[in-house]
Amino acid sequence: MSDKVLLDYGSGGRASQRLISDLFLKYLGNDELDRLNDAAVLNLSGRIAMSTDSFTVDPIFFPGGDIGSLAVHGTVNDVAMMGAVPRYITCGYIIEEGLPMADLERIVQSMGEAARHAGVKVVTGDTKVVPKGACDKIFINTTGIGEIIADPTPSGDAARVGDAVLVSGTMGDHGLTVLGTREGLDFEAKVQSDSAALNHLLVKLVRELPEVHVLRDPTRGGLATTLNEITKSSNVCCELTETSIPVRPEVKGGCSILGLDPLYLANEGKFICILPGEYADKALEIMRADPLGQDACRIGTMTDANPGKVVLVTQLGGKRLLGMLEGEQLPRIC
Amino acid sequence: MSDKVLLDYGSGGRASQRLISDLFLKYLGNDELDRLNDAAVLNLSGRIAMSTDSFTVDPIFFPGGDIGSLAVHGTVNDVAMMGAVPRYITCGYIIEEGLPMADLERIVQSMGEAARHAGVKVVTGDTKVVPKGACDKIFINTTGIGEIIADPTPSGDAARVGDAVLVSGTMGDHGLTVLGTREGLDFEAKVQSDSAALNHLLVKLVRELPEVHVLRDPTRGGLATTLNEITKSSNVCCELTETSIPVRPEVKGGCSILGLDPLYLANEGKFICILPGEYADKALEIMRADPLGQDACRIGTMTDANPGKVVLVTQLGGKRLLGMLEGEQLPRIC
Repeated sequence: MSDKVLLDYGSGGRASQRLISDLFLKYLGNDELDRLNDAAVLNLSGRIAMSTDSFTVDPIFFPGGDIGSLAVHGTVNDVAMMGAVPRYITCGYIIEEGLPMADLERIVQSMGEAARHAGVKVVTGDTKVVPKGACDKIFINTTGIGEIIADPTPSGDAARVGDAVLVSGTMGDHGLTVLGTREGLDFEAKVQSDSAALNHLLVKLVRELPEVHVLRDPTRGGLATTLNEITKSSNVCCELTETSIPVRPEVKGGCSILGLDPLYLANEGKFICILPGEYADKALEIMRADPLGQDACRIGTMTDANPGKVVLVTQLGGKRLLGMLEGEQLPRIC
Repeated sequence: MSDKVLLDYGSGGRASQRLISDLFLKYLGNDELDRLNDAAVLNLSGRIAMSTDSFTVDPIFFPGGDIGSLAVHGTVNDVAMMGAVPRYITCGYIIEEGLPMADLERIVQSMGEAARHAGVKVVTGDTKVVPKGACDKIFINTTGIGEIIADPTPSGDAARVGDAVLVSGTMGDHGLTVLGTREGLDFEAKVQSDSAALNHLLVKLVRELPEVHVLRDPTRGGLATTLNEITKSSNVCCELTETSIPVRPEVKGGCSILGLDPLYLANEGKFICILPGEYADKALEIMRADPLGQDACRIGTMTDANPGKVVLVTQLGGKRLLGMLEGEQLPRIC
């Protein structure tokens, strides 16, 4: 194969087939993908969760991950947030002509490792190569499906007054890392993306605590935007204690230099868990027993004070409204 | 909303939500999509077919269709080729900052109409907006799932010696139309894309004729490339009669001007059906009763002459090998 991706590799002809067998099957292959039919044949039953996400992150490699692993984590997490066991994912690659083959190989290899680690199979895919300039390096879509084990299914409209609001760890790591890498900023202390597959931890959580009301990953728009969506859907008020929200000192530092708020920065390996207050300690215990939830903590409570709003009780005891992100804080963050 | 797509619309914040509710839900809305959860919850059972495709067609509007309808047809057809009833699709939009909002609206509306016509629901989606220059106008990924009703499932490796090879209509219409529109060519007679959802016809076919061995849509690489894949997977020889392959005179004319072979041009509303010779007439009868199969005909037979090869018996009685497309004949055709 050439050391750069050529238009030929997206033709559907012989060159495409070489790329698929020599590279995609090498790292992603399994019984179903190897068949190379137009569609995969899967066995599934019951209630199915299905989610899709396109990844356009810039840069495509960043501390803690790359577009290949991120594309697995993002979709696996969205499926798992429904209280489901992610089983299968598809991948659709759009590649710019001229991308170094070594970069593509590194991305596909990383996708394969992330999928194995998450316990999902890549069962079917599609590769398009577009002429130089028609896309920036590489975009990846993944779509995932899984079997729902939680009953009732956690949902953004299921938060109730009295519920505890927990997060599984520190906020803002992914967003600040991607921005810092893109802009070539050298922060004092190194930050890295939290990109990770949360499904094993989430499955444990919903198996042991069917009382969970809401599970959500605060990706684009961050914690503040995601909580705003939940309070609006559920018509409750979220009261947060500022000092209890975990943010790494190096992320705080980077944000203050750049004028960013970590509560609006994307996370790719964290989740919000909302459940009746009496189960909060049990949930934290389960979360903290997993390396991906070791910094889990309770950050607030759902009340009936200002339905549809998120209120932050600041360090000094004041209250301020935490609005929804209006426009774009950071494009191409995932 | 602005008359152009702004970066803000991909932020995950308030501007994103306006775009989703005012535009996407308006044309694609249904019970499941309206919930706006991170993943859709679906009821499915048994053997499931799943397929994914990214669409990067240039131009985004062409005679007979656009990227919105094409994105539905392409995926619905891939699912249906497994002998499945397509049920649900996801859509992932990657939009270039500055795309006229009217273009986006026309595309989403067209996607909605195509989905309704095909009888599938768009159950979940994702929208990314990338800065100007990071992608060319708009790319759409769709992933579809459906319930398999054919037993055994049609498969590319199931062709047998003695099988008849049928096509559902004329070859090359889509490829020539897209190329002609992109290059601003004005052919003598107007050609238009055959982009269409074949699932209703295919479901009828596999219900009445469970004996079907292979169903495939000859998209990228065209009839010749798809038949090469099948003969290699099934280890049989496909002997085609050149004069029996339906090609519109205007497509023949356009191809001869441009030096293209219609047997290698993409189709988006046609399928190849391979089944035991004794069922060929019945299959043609079913196909011809449907407007999408009215030009269906038998074009050849599977033999044991040259396993893995496609042989064309020319108009003059000569035989020539029809190889697989090597590289890229036409980029961004779908």
